[in-house]
Amino acid sequence: MTFETLAVETDDDGVTLLTLSRPDALNSFTVTMARELEAFFLAAADDDAIRAIVVTGAGKAFCAGMDLSAEGNVFGLDESLEPTPAELREHLTEEPYLSGVRDTGGKVALAIHACPKPVIAAVNGAAVGIGATMTLAMDLRLASTRARIGFVFGRLGIVPEACSTWFLPRIVGTQQALEWIYSAEILTADQALAGRLVRSVHEPDDLVAAALELARSFVVDRSPVALALAKQLVYAGSAAPHPLEAHIADSLAMFHTSVGDGREGVAAFREKRTPSFTGRASELPRIF
Amino acid sequence: MTFETLAVETDDDGVTLLTLSRPDALNSFTVTMARELEAFFLAAADDDAIRAIVVTGAGKAFCAGMDLSAEGNVFGLDESLEPTPAELREHLTEEPYLSGVRDTGGKVALAIHACPKPVIAAVNGAAVGIGATMTLAMDLRLASTRARIGFVFGRLGIVPEACSTWFLPRIVGTQQALEWIYSAEILTADQALAGRLVRSVHEPDDLVAAALELARSFVVDRSPVALALAKQLVYAGSAAPHPLEAHIADSLAMFHTSVGDGREGVAAFREKRTPSFTGRASELPRIF
Amino acid sequence: MTFETLAVETDDDGVTLLTLSRPDALNSFTVTMARELEAFFLAAADDDAIRAIVVTGAGKAFCAGMDLSAEGNVFGLDESLEPTPAELREHLTEEPYLSGVRDTGGKVALAIHACPKPVIAAVNGAAVGIGATMTLAMDLRLASTRARIGFVFGRLGIVPEACSTWFLPRIVGTQQALEWIYSAEILTADQALAGRLVRSVHEPDDLVAAALELARSFVVDRSPVALALAKQLVYAGSAAPHPLEAHIADSLAMFHTSVGDGREGVAAFREKRTPSFTGRASELPRIF
Repeated sequence: MTFETLAVETDDDGVTLLTLSRPDALNSFTVTMARELEAFFLAAADDDAIRAIVVTGAGKAFCAGMDLSAEGNVFGLDESLEPTPAELREHLTEEPYLSGVRDTGGKVALAIHACPKPVIAAVNGAAVGIGATMTLAMDLRLASTRARIGFVFGRLGIVPEACSTWFLPRIVGTQQALEWIYSAEILTADQALAGRLVRSVHEPDDLVAAALELARSFVVDRSPVALALAKQLVYAGSAAPHPLEAHIADSLAMFHTSVGDGREGVAAFREKRTPSFTGRASELPRIF
Repeated sequence: MTFETLAVETDDDGVTLLTLSRPDALNSFTVTMARELEAFFLAAADDDAIRAIVVTGAGKAFCAGMDLSAEGNVFGLDESLEPTPAELREHLTEEPYLSGVRDTGGKVALAIHACPKPVIAAVNGAAVGIGATMTLAMDLRLASTRARIGFVFGRLGIVPEACSTWFLPRIVGTQQALEWIYSAEILTADQALAGRLVRSVHEPDDLVAAALELARSFVVDRSPVALALAKQLVYAGSAAPHPLEAHIADSLAMFHTSVGDGREGVAAFREKRTPSFTGRASELPRIF
Repeated sequence: MTFETLAVETDDDGVTLLTLSRPDALNSFTVTMARELEAFFLAAADDDAIRAIVVTGAGKAFCAGMDLSAEGNVFGLDESLEPTPAELREHLTEEPYLSGVRDTGGKVALAIHACPKPVIAAVNGAAVGIGATMTLAMDLRLASTRARIGFVFGRLGIVPEACSTWFLPRIVGTQQALEWIYSAEILTADQALAGRLVRSVHEPDDLVAAALELARSFVVDRSPVALALAKQLVYAGSAAPHPLEAHIADSLAMFHTSVGDGREGVAAFREKRTPSFTGRASELPRIF
């Protein structure tokens, strides 16, 4: 895959560095970038050569938000549709009929969420609007001391998008989520760390290496199937109505892995050797 | 609206200071106060002159809990009804048949929750029982160094109410929520801050000013529609079974705002001027 | 009840110390231990002499995980069943047909969850795999400075189980949960405290006493009914789709307690005496 707005490099361990690459425009988000991000994450889900993904921005910014220089409706929405709320709800997932009313950031967030690999944001600079919310669908966020993160929607008269209101309360709780969204202020890396939005803060020159190293620690000598199922289980568990639902999913995933990579894992543990897993994340059982 | 137990003042920015005003009784909660709080928040939802609400207590206390000096069933429940659990569940939302068995604090909490404006608790002193739980349905909590907060239900043989078990785990997590409820201890402001229940601690003389300033920062030059939808999205997102639900709600809210206040917001951003929003929180689209 | 793998002691206040007792095997988890833990917690639910439970490990470890020295499928699963995912989901809760495919740790977690008493983990040493996840279904976790906690499933090619993906995000949030599960590292007590997994860290010799004291503070002069309902309300509230669900449950629980132990609680408060509660946790109303 080649992209206009993204650069992709994958090393021998299966750690992919995905770089938002519109540095002259502070990597601001366009409809093209949205389509390319969605396509990348949907393809990565089926590509066993990709084991974990680090996302960063080229140049000074991570992503300075929606590109507001675009013509027409900058949010990529087709205003001529004028659907009623009831129609929207009923037809929202029908492509292409109402694709013009689906939030583009949300399509990207859903593709990240559905990609059964660890995804780490390395926030190297300004991450504003969709530049902030797209990181929430990623599993962990590392920040440079130069990171500046803002849920600035309130200043523009619009709402936080990209499924951010599903992810943000699960990361930082409702009180912190509401303050940041109401205030629409730009947070420093330290404020984001204190509020538990980012996992750690790094010197600018160390950020991407730290994120790649963390990603590598997740995948080397690990079962891609076990990782993939674990990602699905955590998010599903965070939203399940009762632990019994988690028990059903756990049992299915445990049964599947116990006759697969788990057999090799236990054997390697007993024999005090490194396991050699053969399972593929592209061939997961359907649990949810 | 005039009230027996509340004082209400709204300034030109639309920031309302709501004061629990039974200072001789430490603002303890009565059935009258419950009715007045519910009426206030339901009316505020439709009143575009009110943009944000700060709640504090007159005198030394915020609210010292249920007024236990009342005659009969101090919780406002009609014991003669003696409904079975099944009947209760079936008829609970039918007014007035079983209104006598609905938790009065819960009616207040639901009215706060349904009010599409930022609501900030300025906890100036004792906030005990319903005085503590009513703040949980508010979006943020600021505390004076003199605040004393207690989920003391266990000492009285009753349970935490006012929908508090929905809100508290979303603010502080289940482990902290259970410890405070099991222990029924009175927390200092610093303990509440360490446990992430309150957002910040202030000198007593600075508390209300800080809360009003924060409320003002949320609303001046902001779209009331965008704020209102953001509040709904965050709470709904925190409880939605899958990010797809958030995506549907996001898309509806983004579509609505992009052809409304969002158009003005983007234009103002491009023209480097202050936006002039005309949307009204009293006219929200039905999304949920 | 007597057990092969557990020791149980209950004091006059109703505080039970449950000790995992296979110290020569670092209290590693076997199918027998799973059955005994499940039986203990199910019985404790109906035993009014047990008011709160502290769980610790005999000797140096808390529980060093699944006993991988067992013959055959160490996870206790019957591989001959080979059910399809659809069959599993449909029949999972049918005993005994598919009991061989139900995760044994999950049965224990569900029994802990269903036991309407405070349950406190006193993590005295290694708590690895199921040794870590079983503590998540407990309400609070105290750790010794010697505690070492690891969600090490990824190293074995299997997934986190025991309903852990339901509980862990509710305790520490999704970002922290995913990092620990992806990394499969062993956490020190201080790391677990910083990540809010454990509530406090203690000198090894003080740990169990601190946990017992905390448990005692939850139950002495308290209503077992109010405690039991509060536990149910918090977990249910954390997962309910809307505060209205909490309001219905609150109202039922408040009505039940207001004509029961709440009457005595209020009377004692007015008369400035210690309450004498007579409600029984073994006779709870059905609310959920």
